Amino acid sequence: MTQPLIFVLNGPNLNLLGTREPHIYGHDTLADIDARLIAQGEKLGLAVECYQSNHEGALIDWLHEARARGAKAVLLNAGAYTHTSVALHDAIKAVELPVIEVHLSNPHKREEFRHKSYIGMAAMATVAGFGARSYSVALDAAAGL
Amino acid sequence: MTQPLIFVLNGPNLNLLGTREPHIYGHDTLADIDARLIAQGEKLGLAVECYQSNHEGALIDWLHEARARGAKAVLLNAGAYTHTSVALHDAIKAVELPVIEVHLSNPHKREEFRHKSYIGMAAMATVAGFGARSYSVALDAAAGL
Amino acid sequence: MTQPLIFVLNGPNLNLLGTREPHIYGHDTLADIDARLIAQGEKLGLAVECYQSNHEGALIDWLHEARARGAKAVLLNAGAYTHTSVALHDAIKAVELPVIEVHLSNPHKREEFRHKSYIGMAAMATVAGFGARSYSVALDAAAGL
Amino acid sequence: MTQPLIFVLNGPNLNLLGTREPHIYGHDTLADIDARLIAQGEKLGLAVECYQSNHEGALIDWLHEARARGAKAVLLNAGAYTHTSVALHDAIKAVELPVIEVHLSNPHKREEFRHKSYIGMAAMATVAGFGARSYSVALDAAAGL
Amino acid sequence: MTQPLIFVLNGPNLNLLGTREPHIYGHDTLADIDARLIAQGEKLGLAVECYQSNHEGALIDWLHEARARGAKAVLLNAGAYTHTSVALHDAIKAVELPVIEVHLSNPHKREEFRHKSYIGMAAMATVAGFGARSYSVALDAAAGL
Amino acid sequence: MTQPLIFVLNGPNLNLLGTREPHIYGHDTLADIDARLIAQGEKLGLAVECYQSNHEGALIDWLHEARARGAKAVLLNAGAYTHTSVALHDAIKAVELPVIEVHLSNPHKREEFRHKSYIGMAAMATVAGFGARSYSVALDAAAGL
Amino acid sequence: MTQPLIFVLNGPNLNLLGTREPHIYGHDTLADIDARLIAQGEKLGLAVECYQSNHEGALIDWLHEARARGAKAVLLNAGAYTHTSVALHDAIKAVELPVIEVHLSNPHKREEFRHKSYIGMAAMATVAGFGARSYSVALDAAAGL
Amino acid sequence: MTQPLIFVLNGPNLNLLGTREPHIYGHDTLADIDARLIAQGEKLGLAVECYQSNHEGALIDWLHEARARGAKAVLLNAGAYTHTSVALHDAIKAVELPVIEVHLSNPHKREEFRHKSYIGMAAMATVAGFGARSYSVALDAAAGL
Amino acid sequence: MTQPLIFVLNGPNLNLLGTREPHIYGHDTLADIDARLIAQGEKLGLAVECYQSNHEGALIDWLHEARARGAKAVLLNAGAYTHTSVALHDAIKAVELPVIEVHLSNPHKREEFRHKSYIGMAAMATVAGFGARSYSVALDAAAGL
Amino acid sequence: MTQPLIFVLNGPNLNLLGTREPHIYGHDTLADIDARLIAQGEKLGLAVECYQSNHEGALIDWLHEARARGAKAVLLNAGAYTHTSVALHDAIKAVELPVIEVHLSNPHKREEFRHKSYIGMAAMATVAGFGARSYSVALDAAAGL
Amino acid sequence: MTQPLIFVLNGPNLNLLGTREPHIYGHDTLADIDARLIAQGEKLGLAVECYQSNHEGALIDWLHEARARGAKAVLLNAGAYTHTSVALHDAIKAVELPVIEVHLSNPHKREEFRHKSYIGMAAMATVAGFGARSYSVALDAAAGL
Amino acid sequence: MTQPLIFVLNGPNLNLLGTREPHIYGHDTLADIDARLIAQGEKLGLAVECYQSNHEGALIDWLHEARARGAKAVLLNAGAYTHTSVALHDAIKAVELPVIEVHLSNPHKREEFRHKSYIGMAAMATVAGFGARSYSVALDAAAGL
Repeated sequence: MTQPLIFVLNGPNLNLLGTREPHIYGHDTLADIDARLIAQGEKLGLAVECYQSNHEGALIDWLHEARARGAKAVLLNAGAYTHTSVALHDAIKAVELPVIEVHLSNPHKREEFRHKSYIGMAAMATVAGFGARSYSVALDAAAGL
Repeated sequence: MTQPLIFVLNGPNLNLLGTREPHIYGHDTLADIDARLIAQGEKLGLAVECYQSNHEGALIDWLHEARARGAKAVLLNAGAYTHTSVALHDAIKAVELPVIEVHLSNPHKREEFRHKSYIGMAAMATVAGFGARSYSVALDAAAGL
Repeated sequence: MTQPLIFVLNGPNLNLLGTREPHIYGHDTLADIDARLIAQGEKLGLAVECYQSNHEGALIDWLHEARARGAKAVLLNAGAYTHTSVALHDAIKAVELPVIEVHLSNPHKREEFRHKSYIGMAAMATVAGFGARSYSVALDAAAGL
Repeated sequence: MTQPLIFVLNGPNLNLLGTREPHIYGHDTLADIDARLIAQGEKLGLAVECYQSNHEGALIDWLHEARARGAKAVLLNAGAYTHTSVALHDAIKAVELPVIEVHLSNPHKREEFRHKSYIGMAAMATVAGFGARSYSVALDAAAGL
Repeated sequence: MTQPLIFVLNGPNLNLLGTREPHIYGHDTLADIDARLIAQGEKLGLAVECYQSNHEGALIDWLHEARARGAKAVLLNAGAYTHTSVALHDAIKAVELPVIEVHLSNPHKREEFRHKSYIGMAAMATVAGFGARSYSVALDAAAGL
Repeated sequence: MTQPLIFVLNGPNLNLLGTREPHIYGHDTLADIDARLIAQGEKLGLAVECYQSNHEGALIDWLHEARARGAKAVLLNAGAYTHTSVALHDAIKAVELPVIEVHLSNPHKREEFRHKSYIGMAAMATVAGFGARSYSVALDAAAGL
Repeated sequence: MTQPLIFVLNGPNLNLLGTREPHIYGHDTLADIDARLIAQGEKLGLAVECYQSNHEGALIDWLHEARARGAKAVLLNAGAYTHTSVALHDAIKAVELPVIEVHLSNPHKREEFRHKSYIGMAAMATVAGFGARSYSVALDAAAGL
Repeated sequence: MTQPLIFVLNGPNLNLLGTREPHIYGHDTLADIDARLIAQGEKLGLAVECYQSNHEGALIDWLHEARARGAKAVLLNAGAYTHTSVALHDAIKAVELPVIEVHLSNPHKREEFRHKSYIGMAAMATVAGFGARSYSVALDAAAGL
Repeated sequence: MTQPLIFVLNGPNLNLLGTREPHIYGHDTLADIDARLIAQGEKLGLAVECYQSNHEGALIDWLHEARARGAKAVLLNAGAYTHTSVALHDAIKAVELPVIEVHLSNPHKREEFRHKSYIGMAAMATVAGFGARSYSVALDAAAGL
Repeated sequence: MTQPLIFVLNGPNLNLLGTREPHIYGHDTLADIDARLIAQGEKLGLAVECYQSNHEGALIDWLHEARARGAKAVLLNAGAYTHTSVALHDAIKAVELPVIEVHLSNPHKREEFRHKSYIGMAAMATVAGFGARSYSVALDAAAGL
Repeated sequence: MTQPLIFVLNGPNLNLLGTREPHIYGHDTLADIDARLIAQGEKLGLAVECYQSNHEGALIDWLHEARARGAKAVLLNAGAYTHTSVALHDAIKAVELPVIEVHLSNPHKREEFRHKSYIGMAAMATVAGFGARSYSVALDAAAGL
Repeated sequence: MTQPLIFVLNGPNLNLLGTREPHIYGHDTLADIDARLIAQGEKLGLAVECYQSNHEGALIDWLHEARARGAKAVLLNAGAYTHTSVALHDAIKAVELPVIEVHLSNPHKREEFRHKSYIGMAAMATVAGFGARSYSVALDAAAGL
């Protein structure tokens, strides 16, 4: 029997995690985070798949795929597209899956143009501000859905 | 030896939880939630204290008290004051504690005047949209700080 | 058999009515108005209770109490909190009672920041601009609910 | 000896009252309301005249006529012109009569473009949100001027 | 014969003065400042009374009390309520006393939401930016009224 | 040994002080105020020099001169340039002197376009609303720097 | 048996079509367009009636008449009232008919104040930018309703 | 041989001129002004025709008529429609006549919503602020076109 | 001889048409719509090619291709990119082809952020609100260009 | 006996009149206009003095001088300072002279940032849009003050 | 030894350069410009690589690649993404390379929505308005870094 | 034979360059920069003249002089006037010379009020962000005009 599926989608520039300013963002690369989430998923009985793209359209494609494959939930860190993408907003509404918006930092503490969240206007829930731990907090929360 | 202390602060109208529209908000009263958080805290080795007030000033007083008593973290659901209170914003910055903004629903999915968060502009982190579970997700996250 | 209950709630600075600039606002103190409303209530078969506070939280507390005591309606002159209090807005929606917004003067004739009414965005009805008579017009209207 | 005169002016689309969605707006037609107001006026010793037009200019003409005929007060439900008509605003100021803004529903509970009231910025008073009863509440209030 | 009375009112979070970041804000606690102002008042022949609260309503109550007791002037550092409180604005206008807005720092040098001052829109005068000395500069100025 | 130097800079239209509407602004001319400040400076051990110009550029030139001559502080009433001059804002930042913004009246009590202060966004401190006494209050405060 | 009825309503200044700048707008007068629509309607089995007025109220009156006469649909080119008329917006909602907004040019390509469409916020559909052909495209579309 | 024709169009509420507050607006009625303009026109060799309506549509109709009759110029005091009427704006552009916007007072000295002029955005010229003389100044100017 | 070519371009999330909420959007998939448009094109003597992508850049690429292949017109339903894409706006202007903006629903009836149309600011024409029929209405209109 | 004095003040870039794009602005230089106004003044019994500067401060200085010399009125074309100068606004109010705002073209027909007029918010009257004749129309009007 | 590397990145629609409206934009294709930049680079001892894409994500990918390959600087003409892409803004900050924003025309001279530059808010420098020469001016400047 | 003439105009506070914070802005004074530009000009066959003023009007005067003397181009660093001066904007348009806007830093990276550029809305080109080198980059670019 297949395990419930969780998609973890990362948007623009998150592929650079851990490769610059490690004194600020830590030494964790996105690959490290992905590996930990997959391991955490195994303990929770969840199949976790992780994707990253700098392309807005790719994130929409994967959201559609998550729906097609009957995913239980999606963790979405849309990066800067959070603040500008009505298309991702529509995709979240269209796929009718529980989407959890994830951020490393708290966007409301940054520039004002990051206070608007088209993702938040469509997503079920938000976890932000715990650094790389935001993903694992969100995954635990997703397990309980 | 004393356990690390967690303050759970609830703002205006949250005292009504569970007493109206249970088909929407569930039958959980705030007392039920408080009891569960205290129990969850015990398992995590955390002393959890829960307060609620409809008075903006009382929430500020408790934030100050949290600092005076050396709390490890604060879970703050400031309700409607989230969107209007610069005073709470300043209190969060002044107490220099990890404050986690908590919401039952995702404020970005509601009216536009709820998209502004003076709490989020000062707090370390945010957990929102998991219903009453938002508190326990946040408490788990606080345990890991 | 108990009479239907009407709460009359007055917000900040309304306690000063009648004690300053009587040539403008008249010699009626808030106590005078309260007394007249209670008497008018007796004629209408309504038990009228009047409260005033400069504290936003106290007004919310009383709205909750009105609900707990099964009030038929609430007359609410929230004063300046009319224009700034999302918390009162939420309280009005939460208590699910007919709330009638009352003002001595017509706020739209005053400064632009008084044109926004968080109370009006939640309350059932509005009576404004008849001076102290606004309360008695509203009470008559409440009697007919 | 002539009775004091009250003008009741209704703006655009109010002629459709009672003819559509009676489960929402009730079965009262504007003619029904007019008839009741005239009867209520007789009891109050007031001559009530009721007019309706979809033309902004006609409402201005009638306001001028109210002044010319020495009306005691005007009840004005300007409908959608409430939110857009500086010309009606000016007319109210020019005729120097007590004008009571009347609405069936509470405009602040509707779309944001209905929160602006050029009528309210000029009128003496407002009665809104009591459905068709708003008119009779306003007429009672006008009697006491 | 009684000395002229001066009220010094401090708003939210000012009770924390001197207890955190002394390298920035100095070691002066609010109690130290109060003591100095009382001493300065004695030299100027003024009775100085100092109050602090995190509650918006308490500040309004004290403004009313200042009027009731015939205070000569009020020094008001409303903290964050400066930028959000229409109720305090109205209280200042209602008490008809000379109110001097006081700030430790210059609010215009801080975040844009601190540029709006509902206090300044009602108060007679402003002294800001001299650190703890702002109070004593304002008290000297009040002595000359 | 030279005394510490204070520049007092007055902007547009302040040369008209005392020559019009003396029942409102008093009979003090700018020359009267200058003379009193110089005398007050002598008592405080400060050399006070006063300048006025209707030219934005001249005020910038004098700020530069204040720096070149090692002034201890500058009292600056920039008049209407307060609200429009980014160039003066930059000059204040560039000269790295304590600049005290001075106003006769409280700008926040006037038209909304006077609520913005480019001077306040750069100056160390503000004294406003004491009429001609604002200058002497500011000079006393400058003496204590 | 009567044919389904289509109202074609034209707003301000459209009566001037074809009489000025024919090199831009073409030589078609509104009468020419009306005639062609009536002929096209005959082929489609539709009775087409065409009206034009420079009066906002007249357009509302005709919308009401369309409802009273059981029209199948309305083609509405409200001209400049498109951008300012909440009253027409309300009329469209009130008559509960399929209304198709028609424009000769594409309003989004013109001044920014023409980007707002109160008509579009109420109408079922829009056809714009085909010149005089916009009407016939809309009539074909209406035939298929 | 016919004289050049000048249309003088007056909008809402201008029919009340001279009949209220004569100490402010003078005793001139609109009829007086019309008569003087006709006489002035005779001296200038111009046929002057004067119209007034409270209906936006009527003013548009007359602008069209002015064009149809080959008027040399139009003096237009659109009253409050100045600030709200895109339809009049379009009419002015459509008739391709020299239109001179006329106002008794200077609209920029009044409320901010009167600073916007849709008429001014289309008209050739403006004369405002000379009271009733504005018309005759404009007529003299029109004579020189 | 080749037939005139029509490109039909569909933007983000339109690939999900017909696969969710069929009671609202109908059972038509995008493939169904494409097939019908191709058949309709054959009747009209037009070669219709249909493309869909969730990638903004792909839509731009196809617009360029439409120009390179000498397309007669483009039907463009840019979905959410309608409201955010200046790049598509520029592409439409650059290709200098007749572009018809197409929408299933009327965007002005949806959230305010959908009222802005960068596509509409560049496209020749718009057809919206007829559901899936919007495409065929637009194709008929394109045939007549 | 001296003739009444009229100041004609011209602001930035008006010194270039007649020296560029004569096919648009005509061949009239500012010197030509000045000469004609002086001659027109002589006929009207007015002493006309004309000044031009690109310096905001110089225009303020001349306004002060106009007051000092008892000028009957000032014609002020402040050019671009019209839209940005609060200092000129204050000067006009301070000098308490009839100031007539003059413009060659109609600013409302130009870019939106030219629709704001700080001059108009203080000046008595406006004449705009008659080209170089605007000055002579204004001078005639000034003669009648 | 390898030469320092310069990336030249071109965004949406720039691939059409030189193929349309040559009388305006010149006959230079992007390939021509690229060739000239490579030749200019050779003279300056720089290895120049040129890329173009209509995909926002591709531009981000290349910025990342520029960092991975240790580029000395990036010339970035992001076209329309300049005004909308927070993701590119973040990429520029993340790669920590000197990025020079390049534009053929001066965006501030175009529509207001082109005045906002998310690129400029992150990039080190800007060269705009020299047509195709903007690139070579920027390359010369990059050589001097 | 005379060399082509280049004006280099510097606005407010740029005279302080090199005299403060040399660790940030470098030790270059404006005199140093001027000298280098003159030398660079000689190599390029250009006569370079450099001016600086804190007076907006002086910059306008020099722009006019540049035109009168037939300058080939103007390098303009208007400092803070960049963001506020419509008068300079008009001057640039009036002189019909190629004006290159120059800035030491990139204004878009600074406060939001520096993102607006009235200079950029009129100037041909921009060079910003290269520190003192911005001038020489611009001069090279000007040589190629």
